[in-house]
Amino acid sequence: MTARGPMPRRLEVAEGVVDLSHGAGGRAMAQLIEELFVATFDNELLGQNNDNAVTDPPPGRMVVSTDGFVVSPMFFPGGDIGSLAVHGTVNDVCMAGATPLYLTASFILEEGFPLRDLARVVASMGKAAQAAGVRIITGDTKVVERGKADGVFITTTGIGVARPGPVPSGDRARPGDAVLVSGTLGDHGIAVMSSRPGIGFATDLLSDSAALNGLVGAMMDAAPDIHVLRDPTRGGLAATLNEIARQSGVGMQLQEVAIPIRPEVTGACDLLGLDPLNVANEGKVVAICPPEHAAALLAAMRAHPLGGDAAIIGKVVDDPEHFVELETSFGGRRIVDWLSGEQLPRIC
Amino acid sequence: MTARGPMPRRLEVAEGVVDLSHGAGGRAMAQLIEELFVATFDNELLGQNNDNAVTDPPPGRMVVSTDGFVVSPMFFPGGDIGSLAVHGTVNDVCMAGATPLYLTASFILEEGFPLRDLARVVASMGKAAQAAGVRIITGDTKVVERGKADGVFITTTGIGVARPGPVPSGDRARPGDAVLVSGTLGDHGIAVMSSRPGIGFATDLLSDSAALNGLVGAMMDAAPDIHVLRDPTRGGLAATLNEIARQSGVGMQLQEVAIPIRPEVTGACDLLGLDPLNVANEGKVVAICPPEHAAALLAAMRAHPLGGDAAIIGKVVDDPEHFVELETSFGGRRIVDWLSGEQLPRIC
Repeated sequence: MTARGPMPRRLEVAEGVVDLSHGAGGRAMAQLIEELFVATFDNELLGQNNDNAVTDPPPGRMVVSTDGFVVSPMFFPGGDIGSLAVHGTVNDVCMAGATPLYLTASFILEEGFPLRDLARVVASMGKAAQAAGVRIITGDTKVVERGKADGVFITTTGIGVARPGPVPSGDRARPGDAVLVSGTLGDHGIAVMSSRPGIGFATDLLSDSAALNGLVGAMMDAAPDIHVLRDPTRGGLAATLNEIARQSGVGMQLQEVAIPIRPEVTGACDLLGLDPLNVANEGKVVAICPPEHAAALLAAMRAHPLGGDAAIIGKVVDDPEHFVELETSFGGRRIVDWLSGEQLPRIC
Repeated sequence: MTARGPMPRRLEVAEGVVDLSHGAGGRAMAQLIEELFVATFDNELLGQNNDNAVTDPPPGRMVVSTDGFVVSPMFFPGGDIGSLAVHGTVNDVCMAGATPLYLTASFILEEGFPLRDLARVVASMGKAAQAAGVRIITGDTKVVERGKADGVFITTTGIGVARPGPVPSGDRARPGDAVLVSGTLGDHGIAVMSSRPGIGFATDLLSDSAALNGLVGAMMDAAPDIHVLRDPTRGGLAATLNEIARQSGVGMQLQEVAIPIRPEVTGACDLLGLDPLNVANEGKVVAICPPEHAAALLAAMRAHPLGGDAAIIGKVVDDPEHFVELETSFGGRRIVDWLSGEQLPRIC
């Protein structure tokens, strides 16, 4: 029992830091939630101020996805951990061809983290959520001692509603299907790497971090039977295609010359000893569809602001070994494997 | 691009540790997910192996809640961070009088964390989820460098379906309503504190961590118009009642003699300079209902294994200042304030 005092004066965002009381369930935590989270994410569900949100979703199959975000540095060219935490989870819901509706947000904060930085991250989340048309309806905040976390970690969970009809899924790729990608690869990973202390290099490159629900909606309209949609995040295109190959029990053949990669990314990868196909994207989608729908799908992608550089990059083949093979620009062939090491930690 | 190798041999759970590759989106991460998470949480939705889960929830209003768990130590008498991560979120969904159905789980792991401990936490989550009748349908794993987290942090999000009829909510307490609690207070907080290095003291006390959906279901059956349900976690009963008083614009009057507290908890609180009313619970519920339903509600609570020590502890009153007042065993009165400091960090 503490002496009853007045509510503290307004949160000192400009100069204050997170302290353990902001996670202790008392007055300081209530203030942080009200003045920062509820004020920024303003909507009537969050404003219920319960430890849950109650709502009536539209009818349809429910799609749920969750992701933790630990990107380092938390502010990077083209985004920050807040916008990324919205985009990443919105996109995972989209990959079922669904419309994302709601997000939850859980924050794990390190004691001493500047409230100014937290406010910047939260503002960025709010802006990204609004742009994507999703509402942040409930959340949680925990604080750990200095040195037991790294500023802020955010976990978001997304809930959406699937369209009627077949749902794209990683196990539905079939031999003969076309493999498309919505744009240039590796932009996010290289933009984040470029801002890391000790690795930093000069580039104008921005992360591609973006909410894909608009693009995916247009794609589903143009080609209703898309077999697979997946965003090539951690592990890049290589990991994504290998996962799909394994889930679907197929192989893939790619044309290196068809894969869109910015020269800055190629250059940075040469410098860092990376393959752009292993580098993370946060605003790109891989689509696999029957060959007869590929042209319509490509046209719909290219017509969308986030799909201008879309391309057909290869096809699904019958292969009991589930290899992803690349025909190189020189006419050779190599296996595109997924990363087995730890080259790119904390990229999202 | 790495050399294509065979899938690594099975995860070295007994001797291995988490390394950065387990979060890098490649082969090691896929192995961790398959051999540990999917194998333990075994269900067909998680087995879809997409970055999302697609399902048909039963009709009804949807209830969503999310919570991060950072409890220290992660293994404590009566539970661990895994069981707690299930119980805590299941309970927050229950507090809308709803039936919890699904959980998502996001893990943030520290490099070097023993896989043996992770396996123990995951097994405990799986067991708790099964006992509570909820399925863990999708998840995520991130790894940060040694010293940037503290073993494992878990964020769970719960989704459930509300019953038809009015939903309990923190803004529905009305003057005259009875205030009930389902059992002894402070058990979780004191059990966790007892196992902290530097604070540890000998006690047989166990955390009360438990899933409340069975108890809450029986309560809703017995008293369909419960105005408020809330689990007094961080900040204890004091914080919970102050929050409700503020949300509902009312005051409360409690009888100290009616509040169930174990002698071991009272003793430990004396030792630690804490008030049991500020100490966290993880398997208790506060209920506020019209006075004419209080007897039936109390009987239903006492008839349930998790409500044997349930009690009516006070009533809601008209109070423009929204004070929570306690009539002490000596006949005096004091204000029950919520904690303004940081006495109990990382209790959940």
